[in-house]
Amino acid sequence: MLDQTRLPGEVVHVTLTTWPDVVDAIKAMVIRGAPAIGVAGAMGVALAAHQAAATSSTRQAFDAEMGRAVAELRVARPTAVNLEWAVDRLAGVIADHEGTPQEIAAELAAAARAIHSDEVDRCVAIGHHSLPLFTRGACILTHCNAGALATGGYGTALGVVRAAYEADPSVTVIVDETRPLLQGSRLTAWELAQDGIPYTLISDNMAAMLMSQGRVSHVVVGADRIAANGDVVNKIGTYGVAILAREHGIPFIVAAPTSTLDLTMPSAAEIPVEERAADEVRGLALFGMPAASPDAPVANPAFDRTPARLVTAIITEQGVHRAPYERSLRRAWDDAAH
Amino acid sequence: MLDQTRLPGEVVHVTLTTWPDVVDAIKAMVIRGAPAIGVAGAMGVALAAHQAAATSSTRQAFDAEMGRAVAELRVARPTAVNLEWAVDRLAGVIADHEGTPQEIAAELAAAARAIHSDEVDRCVAIGHHSLPLFTRGACILTHCNAGALATGGYGTALGVVRAAYEADPSVTVIVDETRPLLQGSRLTAWELAQDGIPYTLISDNMAAMLMSQGRVSHVVVGADRIAANGDVVNKIGTYGVAILAREHGIPFIVAAPTSTLDLTMPSAAEIPVEERAADEVRGLALFGMPAASPDAPVANPAFDRTPARLVTAIITEQGVHRAPYERSLRRAWDDAAH
Repeated sequence: MLDQTRLPGEVVHVTLTTWPDVVDAIKAMVIRGAPAIGVAGAMGVALAAHQAAATSSTRQAFDAEMGRAVAELRVARPTAVNLEWAVDRLAGVIADHEGTPQEIAAELAAAARAIHSDEVDRCVAIGHHSLPLFTRGACILTHCNAGALATGGYGTALGVVRAAYEADPSVTVIVDETRPLLQGSRLTAWELAQDGIPYTLISDNMAAMLMSQGRVSHVVVGADRIAANGDVVNKIGTYGVAILAREHGIPFIVAAPTSTLDLTMPSAAEIPVEERAADEVRGLALFGMPAASPDAPVANPAFDRTPARLVTAIITEQGVHRAPYERSLRRAWDDAAH
Repeated sequence: MLDQTRLPGEVVHVTLTTWPDVVDAIKAMVIRGAPAIGVAGAMGVALAAHQAAATSSTRQAFDAEMGRAVAELRVARPTAVNLEWAVDRLAGVIADHEGTPQEIAAELAAAARAIHSDEVDRCVAIGHHSLPLFTRGACILTHCNAGALATGGYGTALGVVRAAYEADPSVTVIVDETRPLLQGSRLTAWELAQDGIPYTLISDNMAAMLMSQGRVSHVVVGADRIAANGDVVNKIGTYGVAILAREHGIPFIVAAPTSTLDLTMPSAAEIPVEERAADEVRGLALFGMPAASPDAPVANPAFDRTPARLVTAIITEQGVHRAPYERSLRRAWDDAAH
């Protein structure tokens, strides 16, 4: 994995050789982004199978070890549904398979690679579907990182940006830095710089002013989980941006593959939101000086809930969905044949 | 001065012995906050007079040196009107005075001290007027630092918080960290901890979620300049918080002395907004690692404009003002006898 905690300062790849290492990497956000942690979870199951096949003398012993790996991998982080979705998909392969551990391990490796390439294909399709939504010279504000780093390649929200920029080189991007973990300034800005797409970095609280000055034409974000009614759970701050976009008459567009849909959730209210460590908020330094007292009481919800009424469109690899979302998302899910 | 750039890590007082040092301290935000930089500007004029009286052989030489000091001090920062207001007030003392440089210097020293003590008195009056606006157990969100550090003592927005807490110890505070310069996490959290007032620190983009969960009952902020129609220019991010407050039906209250009024400005559109150095946005480190590329293109407006229609009430030392603001603010200005 490319260690995302060390970007943009250092480009460091880490090699993980056991499934508990994969659990730890997901928890520590060495890899993050809903589709990407789904891919990582699937790879973790395949890695577990590779090792369990080598050490298990019976299918029963193999299944027991895989049960442990599946149980821990699927809950390494709670909010993005893609992790559960991908791990459960591979668990289904195990349950349905009557062969030897070696045969199962080989099939899981292929299935994990397929999930990875499918996610990238979905991103490209999302980018393609999004093109009619943009006018010439669009200035797209994005929050967090829903780029290649978050998806295994190309990106959801940044896939939309990439497709828009390929079609119209006058497209520019406003990047929310995205406190607390700064995925915007660390990851999105880095990806855009790699691709030569012009961007302006802002702190999150500048978005409203730029919108009031007509400097934002579209907002495009990814999602960690989308409920059956079109409510969106995404990185903390997304809900605020959605309110600001509506206030200024700016389209608020969510780009996500169907693997991010959770049609078992009637609305976002039922979706769990991870509370992360207080030090993510107070561990900041500005010009080398600490920005908060080490014992400051802190709230640190990692995600928030954006109601469907604030969402102009949801783009999946199946196409562009508009309110009311329920039936359209259901059909996308069915057509994607999950 | 208490060096605010080094809080909360270090409590360091600096002694400034020349007026150009005062200009530099205001520019570098060693002291910041609209009323406080007004006091600092006045003190800078008094300091200039003290030195010019010692070195000038004629009134003409004294006036020339004072002209330079006044011209530089009043524009050390452009957005807060209190700086111009206080410096111009002392310039008026010089213009109206027919005495010797020594006599003028003594009068300016007294006038600067009076501005300081008046600002503190105004804060206490603002806190007193605000009490009827709060219900029991209020949870007050504030943005930036409009505390004792920003005003010379007690505070405007934090004066309101202090008064509310003194009247009802179940009051709690939500502190926006306030990127880019983190006046919330560095200064407001520090002031509240000193006073034992319970608070929770959040990154700016968490405010919307906390509001949606019913965890914010009131928003109280200070102001850098208030136009004749009640539009408010304040720290970047204030406008966004005002939109979020209205979306959630939460009162948005502005606390500022009449020295922050600028009735020559019909609306906020005419008020200049300072653009500060890009490194304030990209100079962050999280857990010791740089958060942005050193050459990332950046926008960094230091303030934004909140239209009067989003402001539930403005509290000055003259009382509580409600929309339409024009006549009420005019009367407050006249009654304050500026």
